[in-house]
Amino acid sequence: MRGAVLYAPGDVRVEERENPAIIAPTDAIIRVSATCVCGSDLWDYRGVNEVTQPTPAGHEYVGVVTEIGDEVKNIGVGDFVVGSFFASDNTCEICEAGYQSRCAHAEFVGAGGAQAEYLRVPLADGTLVATPGMPDDDLIPSLLAASDVLGTGWFGAVAAEAGPGKTVAVVGDGAVGLLAVLAAKQLGAERIIAMSRHASRQKLAREFGATDIVEERGDEGVARIKELTGGYGAHSVIEAVGTQESMMQAIRSARPGGHVGYVGVAHGVELPGEEVFFAEVHLHGGPAPVRRFLPELVQLIWDREIDPGKVFDLTLPLDEAAEGFKAMDERRAIKTLLKP
Amino acid sequence: MRGAVLYAPGDVRVEERENPAIIAPTDAIIRVSATCVCGSDLWDYRGVNEVTQPTPAGHEYVGVVTEIGDEVKNIGVGDFVVGSFFASDNTCEICEAGYQSRCAHAEFVGAGGAQAEYLRVPLADGTLVATPGMPDDDLIPSLLAASDVLGTGWFGAVAAEAGPGKTVAVVGDGAVGLLAVLAAKQLGAERIIAMSRHASRQKLAREFGATDIVEERGDEGVARIKELTGGYGAHSVIEAVGTQESMMQAIRSARPGGHVGYVGVAHGVELPGEEVFFAEVHLHGGPAPVRRFLPELVQLIWDREIDPGKVFDLTLPLDEAAEGFKAMDERRAIKTLLKP
Repeated sequence: MRGAVLYAPGDVRVEERENPAIIAPTDAIIRVSATCVCGSDLWDYRGVNEVTQPTPAGHEYVGVVTEIGDEVKNIGVGDFVVGSFFASDNTCEICEAGYQSRCAHAEFVGAGGAQAEYLRVPLADGTLVATPGMPDDDLIPSLLAASDVLGTGWFGAVAAEAGPGKTVAVVGDGAVGLLAVLAAKQLGAERIIAMSRHASRQKLAREFGATDIVEERGDEGVARIKELTGGYGAHSVIEAVGTQESMMQAIRSARPGGHVGYVGVAHGVELPGEEVFFAEVHLHGGPAPVRRFLPELVQLIWDREIDPGKVFDLTLPLDEAAEGFKAMDERRAIKTLLKP
Repeated sequence: MRGAVLYAPGDVRVEERENPAIIAPTDAIIRVSATCVCGSDLWDYRGVNEVTQPTPAGHEYVGVVTEIGDEVKNIGVGDFVVGSFFASDNTCEICEAGYQSRCAHAEFVGAGGAQAEYLRVPLADGTLVATPGMPDDDLIPSLLAASDVLGTGWFGAVAAEAGPGKTVAVVGDGAVGLLAVLAAKQLGAERIIAMSRHASRQKLAREFGATDIVEERGDEGVARIKELTGGYGAHSVIEAVGTQESMMQAIRSARPGGHVGYVGVAHGVELPGEEVFFAEVHLHGGPAPVRRFLPELVQLIWDREIDPGKVFDLTLPLDEAAEGFKAMDERRAIKTLLKP
């Protein structure tokens, strides 16, 4: 099969790879209908994370099940499925509490490389969610978004306790930040402030439900949020970048007693204990337990109540994955969908 | 009046000080019935916090109101009152959300030095809670505990979401940690693990409701907590020390999705962003909004349902404040009560 492999920073190649096979009786194999490039893939692509060997790329996927292991019960061959980037048994105490990304038996699905024609998904019963039927083509981008960026933005909004009566600020205007805006809107937030200085992203943020745009960053951004919230700060802040600056911007934008939901994968972040202590905010985040939200998100998409697929502003054949990475790296594209 | 003043690390003197007077019409003056030495006072006493000038000591107090400003409505002369170490208006949005320690008009009551015969309390209506009547002498230590250490331990337990069905671990066996055990018990926690290696403190922890004692610290302590919780970690962890080691011990002792409530004043703490991200715990804490809990805590004490005053294992006349500090610094005493 064809599959994308990251050889070194800036060096993505689509090449012939071995087809995946069932290894454990809880596995499923899917034929990938659509996959994409994640903002978190750029940490590797930019050399922030070390790439020590050629690594299959991608961890977001939707597709049709072609084979299942003997113990798979809930998913059948022919099902159209959406899954999280972390495989989970969905039965352990951690999963039952809604933290499937930290399942006692969690495995990174992306280890197999989802930017490919086929993908092995471990713990299929606990990881995959089947759609009610074969989706129309136009639903596929949104279903694909559910497998990570929508689920991650949603978790950020839930972790930040976005909801009725709340003013929510979103730090980061990548796909996750934009979908955190959508999530905050769905969760009933009263006011949603998107922090963005890119016209096209501001526009999408407004489509997704942003009521205000703040272009300033850092201390100036914090000051603007305070101005907009009677001096108190936002009730809820969603952090969707993962840098020191963005984390501090998020913490400082929240009011005492407010909630910061952080879903940008932390890189080089050190939180100053004393400032965090006196900030007196709630902090919660991490790799999103997308599986917790998938049934609800799939239904919302199926019913065409949300259209998170709008974050894909570039669609390419899988063979052009390298250009897909490049366009995102250069911020020419918000998010690239790849068609195997 | 007599009052304790910290001149330099290790140098506490009780000397003649000017009586406090009403400054703002929202002030009250109280005659202090009992005051005490706080674990957080030891940061100054030990020279961890710089002491640049002679500083009135103490921020915990109960007493009788002797004078009120013209705008004080809810508190009257002659009332026996308990108050928090932070004055709060109790009417701003932050107070209404339960974060009185970060009130938009917060003032540190301890600025006036509570280890004294009289104390000025700003924003008396929003800060003080009157007891239902004049308390019996034996209730005074418990009411005094409510003004900080009980309220702080309680906030830690609430921040850690201690409650029915939960396993709660408590890092720190000072007065706050011990009262966090009591709080967790009152909040209905199923299992309470006190981390302590001091026999007298272990005994008090058990009296307050601890079901298990873990003597190990650091990574070994974390391993023991994991062993006791099916490998997952505790649902709730209360941090009541404030050092790098104790914070990391707390975070690592919590399961993914669990809650860490930190109330030890952070000193020299830097939280590693990546570890915090993947730990996927909830973090919340800071200076306790004691005022939120005071009405309930005063009632529980009045009804003799809890006896937090047991943390005072040394009672001295105010004039012997220096010995009170020394005994706590040397861990000969858990907490020193001072009688003006």
